[in-house]
Amino acid sequence: MASSLRPLFSRCRRWDSSSLAAPDSLDPRLISIDLSGLSVTPTSTPKPLTPHNELVFGRTFTDHMLSIEWTTQDGWHPPRITPYQNLSLDPATCVFHYAFECFEGMKAYKDKSGDVRLFRPDKNMARMNRSSARIALPTFDSEAMIRLIGQFVKMEERFIPSERGYSLYIRPTMIGTQRTLGVGPPGSALLYVIASPVGPYYPTGFKAISLEATTYAVRAWPGGVGNAKLGANYAPCIVPQMQAATRGLHQNLWIFEEVDQKTGEKLDYLTEVGTMNLFVAIKHQDGTKELVTAPLDGTILEGVTRDSVLALARERLEPQGWQVNERRCTMQEVSAAAAEGRLMEVFGAGTAAVVSPVRAISWRDRMIPCGLADNEEAGPVARQMKDWIEGIQYGDEEHSWSVRIGDAADLEAAKM
Amino acid sequence: MASSLRPLFSRCRRWDSSSLAAPDSLDPRLISIDLSGLSVTPTSTPKPLTPHNELVFGRTFTDHMLSIEWTTQDGWHPPRITPYQNLSLDPATCVFHYAFECFEGMKAYKDKSGDVRLFRPDKNMARMNRSSARIALPTFDSEAMIRLIGQFVKMEERFIPSERGYSLYIRPTMIGTQRTLGVGPPGSALLYVIASPVGPYYPTGFKAISLEATTYAVRAWPGGVGNAKLGANYAPCIVPQMQAATRGLHQNLWIFEEVDQKTGEKLDYLTEVGTMNLFVAIKHQDGTKELVTAPLDGTILEGVTRDSVLALARERLEPQGWQVNERRCTMQEVSAAAAEGRLMEVFGAGTAAVVSPVRAISWRDRMIPCGLADNEEAGPVARQMKDWIEGIQYGDEEHSWSVRIGDAADLEAAKM
Repeated sequence: MASSLRPLFSRCRRWDSSSLAAPDSLDPRLISIDLSGLSVTPTSTPKPLTPHNELVFGRTFTDHMLSIEWTTQDGWHPPRITPYQNLSLDPATCVFHYAFECFEGMKAYKDKSGDVRLFRPDKNMARMNRSSARIALPTFDSEAMIRLIGQFVKMEERFIPSERGYSLYIRPTMIGTQRTLGVGPPGSALLYVIASPVGPYYPTGFKAISLEATTYAVRAWPGGVGNAKLGANYAPCIVPQMQAATRGLHQNLWIFEEVDQKTGEKLDYLTEVGTMNLFVAIKHQDGTKELVTAPLDGTILEGVTRDSVLALARERLEPQGWQVNERRCTMQEVSAAAAEGRLMEVFGAGTAAVVSPVRAISWRDRMIPCGLADNEEAGPVARQMKDWIEGIQYGDEEHSWSVRIGDAADLEAAKM
Repeated sequence: MASSLRPLFSRCRRWDSSSLAAPDSLDPRLISIDLSGLSVTPTSTPKPLTPHNELVFGRTFTDHMLSIEWTTQDGWHPPRITPYQNLSLDPATCVFHYAFECFEGMKAYKDKSGDVRLFRPDKNMARMNRSSARIALPTFDSEAMIRLIGQFVKMEERFIPSERGYSLYIRPTMIGTQRTLGVGPPGSALLYVIASPVGPYYPTGFKAISLEATTYAVRAWPGGVGNAKLGANYAPCIVPQMQAATRGLHQNLWIFEEVDQKTGEKLDYLTEVGTMNLFVAIKHQDGTKELVTAPLDGTILEGVTRDSVLALARERLEPQGWQVNERRCTMQEVSAAAAEGRLMEVFGAGTAAVVSPVRAISWRDRMIPCGLADNEEAGPVARQMKDWIEGIQYGDEEHSWSVRIGDAADLEAAKM
């Protein structure tokens, strides 16, 4: 479909985040992390565990944190695991002024043998490196960082409940720490990891949510930073989220509007939900079933769950006759499919909930029902995906995506 | 000129930052600041003054800082002036993760009588309130804040050199301080003000800079946050700035590209320079002289210096036959004017330099000369504007924009 902004989009693909990186972001001296320098200071005051039913996402944290400082002079300093503690920063530190910050969200799970597992940590570390390079923060050796996170998580094992649905949410964060107000690349940074035990997103089973197709505010655009996990992408989305809530809607579905160059029609392209990517299952007029999500064109986050849903759908749904596509999709198409009874289901995909079924989308004063019966909280694809992915995350199905954390010997070996 | 994105632009004007604000941003209980509660703790270790010729922007700071905490429960707590000191923050604090941060840049000047003056502080405080409301941070009583800043600056008076061109750069900053990882409006915040003595931007007279008309990366978008002074607008611009530097160019001129719906032509609209707004002086074919800057369409910062240049140009240049316009202007128009000898001059306008003359703009593999002779570092409008504005800032010309800081009695009276 030709539309007026296509030239921008295609150009944007050339300038993806790997080319839009700080000039020295691949200097090996500045990337390497010396695992043999790790120092561990255990807490002397272990925290009591929060009762499982009182766990709230990101509110209570474990006993320790992992920190590594970086300077342009010396690259990454020796890593440290210390008691969880405040950061002490000069008020002129650049993270407070110019949003030099990026982060990741990943989880550790306890399997039925009591072993602790990470889910696709390589994906999170690769994305964090793309995010940091995009804002002139340092990059790092992903493999070393996964080992350090493994060591850290192993220390915090007692905080991970064994029950299905529970996990340890892990938050790697990088901030610029230069103490001057000049606007330029930070000469120093801090990479730290904290962790928070979390309960199941749907403690009593799926609850379908309703979205606002938001057109008056825009989350991301071609040539911007919507594909990087930067703090900068979050604060600007809160007021639209509060405004959607006043209309009874749970989250914003960020629309990218374009005018079709031939017809002059305004088209509302689906991008993402801000904390999730979005999948749409449509039955076409010829009976073909298609699972669609937005392509990685620079305006959406490259979600790890998104990638997992796509891979599983290609492996396990395509043989059942499904088409699985990353392509641009409009609200006009979704609305027409809904009107004709062809919109099978819609769901979000993200680390927090794995999948999050959508009951309806409010779009330009219409409410588009998304294929669920009144007494139904999830469609069959969403249910199936949650089962498949959680099966892998909790180790019921052995899969290369699920990485068992060895005992400390693993890291000790690496120190040799 | 009809172009394909016009509908977006006009819609964006309706949703300006005043409507895109947190729902409770006008709650009077949460805005007011109790001046009578101010506590002042003078430092016991005054810093030595940095020699004037060693002053670097934003590198050394004064003895004290002004801080006010805010919570949703209690609104603004009593203000405190304390010794300049580190902030101690939990690593889960939302400013580190979701870029809940906004700031201002303003200056205090010493006039020839030794009095200290602020330049249009009402403008800075109004903009800071718009910025904070846009990201669900609290708003505040601007007038009370100006009084507090006056009191703070008065305490730091010894750091302000008397010589022309020197000033005290003042950095009001607001950060979200909630210690949870849930993505939502912060329940607590900290507003603080630090100050850094600065020397003249051009210690040995004007030095014209060259700009890269940047089209591969995009600073702001209609419906985004380009008109708010958020940290989020800065980190994403650093890598393009570093890349421009490798090509010998000093700053990015952010272009907003649109395809003209009728002709299919791609048009490159001038927006701003990232730390400055941009002015272009063009002589039209009929001989009319026009001073142009981009309109406040949501994609550029509402600069205080921009507003001052516009006001002075309307008051003092229009009677000389100039037209002064806020309108959209393309690189195509600038390039054509340059080719025909009608591009009179180009200059940036911002708090740091007041005006910053531009020698040339690199645009799509061409270098567009901006009207300066080889031996010239500034055009007559830029020179005139700098003289007029500095004359007001340093109190040579009495003007309502320049606010003399009264002695402490001013604040004491307010406490009654």
